[in-house]
Amino acid sequence: MASLRGIQQPELSKKLFKIIKSENHTIGAYESASRERISIASQLSDWGEATGDDSLSDVSDKLGVLLSELGEQEDVFAQNLEDYRTVLKQIRNTESSVQPSRDHKVKISDEIAKLKYKEPQSTKIVQLEQELVRAEAQNLVAEAQLTNIVRTALTTSNPTNRRRQDFPLDDHR
Amino acid sequence: MASLRGIQQPELSKKLFKIIKSENHTIGAYESASRERISIASQLSDWGEATGDDSLSDVSDKLGVLLSELGEQEDVFAQNLEDYRTVLKQIRNTESSVQPSRDHKVKISDEIAKLKYKEPQSTKIVQLEQELVRAEAQNLVAEAQLTNIVRTALTTSNPTNRRRQDFPLDDHR
Repeated sequence: MASLRGIQQPELSKKLFKIIKSENHTIGAYESASRERISIASQLSDWGEATGDDSLSDVSDKLGVLLSELGEQEDVFAQNLEDYRTVLKQIRNTESSVQPSRDHKVKISDEIAKLKYKEPQSTKIVQLEQELVRAEAQNLVAEAQLTNIVRTALTTSNPTNRRRQDFPLDDHR
Repeated sequence: MASLRGIQQPELSKKLFKIIKSENHTIGAYESASRERISIASQLSDWGEATGDDSLSDVSDKLGVLLSELGEQEDVFAQNLEDYRTVLKQIRNTESSVQPSRDHKVKISDEIAKLKYKEPQSTKIVQLEQELVRAEAQNLVAEAQLTNIVRTALTTSNPTNRRRQDFPLDDHR
């Protein structure tokens, strides 16, 4: 982890933010392995040809074809990882959007507690308590949306359920 | 290919020298993918636990175990690649040791051609021709040893033939 930017992320999405970053490194590693593998494949075939030994040349060429296919599959795998990383990003974005609603709720609760201690008779307490109920309702919906999007994302990782991928909650804001 | 050191290698082992270098990058890529994968596995499990959702926590923990196993297998794969790279190195070393014998043969042939043009009556020509026959014989053996070591190496990539790995020609010098 070379950067500390994760620290600037809302608390709730910090963990996923880091996972998404690590996953990017992993994808890069697979892409690099794929590129090198394909390059080695043709080099090995060339080397076999240069030996001037017919059967060696034949074997090394076949090995080259095999290695080249392996390299291409490695690249397909990296692309699939990229798709899965996109799903993680959707979850992370929802987590980030839920954070302000949590913060809002906590902030009002704190204000009420402070007022009750300093000016227990203040009429503002009632007003804040009403506000808190509204904030709690809003947060309840946000948390439910988050749970839904996460569960939907985990379900769509099952290929037989691909249709659910048009997340029903994606336009929740 | 960040370095041009391959250029200092004997012509014969240049190709393998480059392949061995590329293979080192590939192995590094797999090792890095393995490390990241194992790290992501535990991060994903932590993230699931932090959601406070029991079933999510359960699924993410199981996914974590699976990813962690994947990462470990990736590392085993990298180790096996390292073994195969060692075989390539043995071939490359033999190729390097064959090069001087080839060069020697060519050098004598060149000298004979030069002498025949400049001093066609020189008695040195007969002497050089005898030397050439000896050099050709020595080179013939070296080339045969190279062919043998390459074929043996390709055969030992078949696991049922592992015993042949104690290369019978390894001490050819």
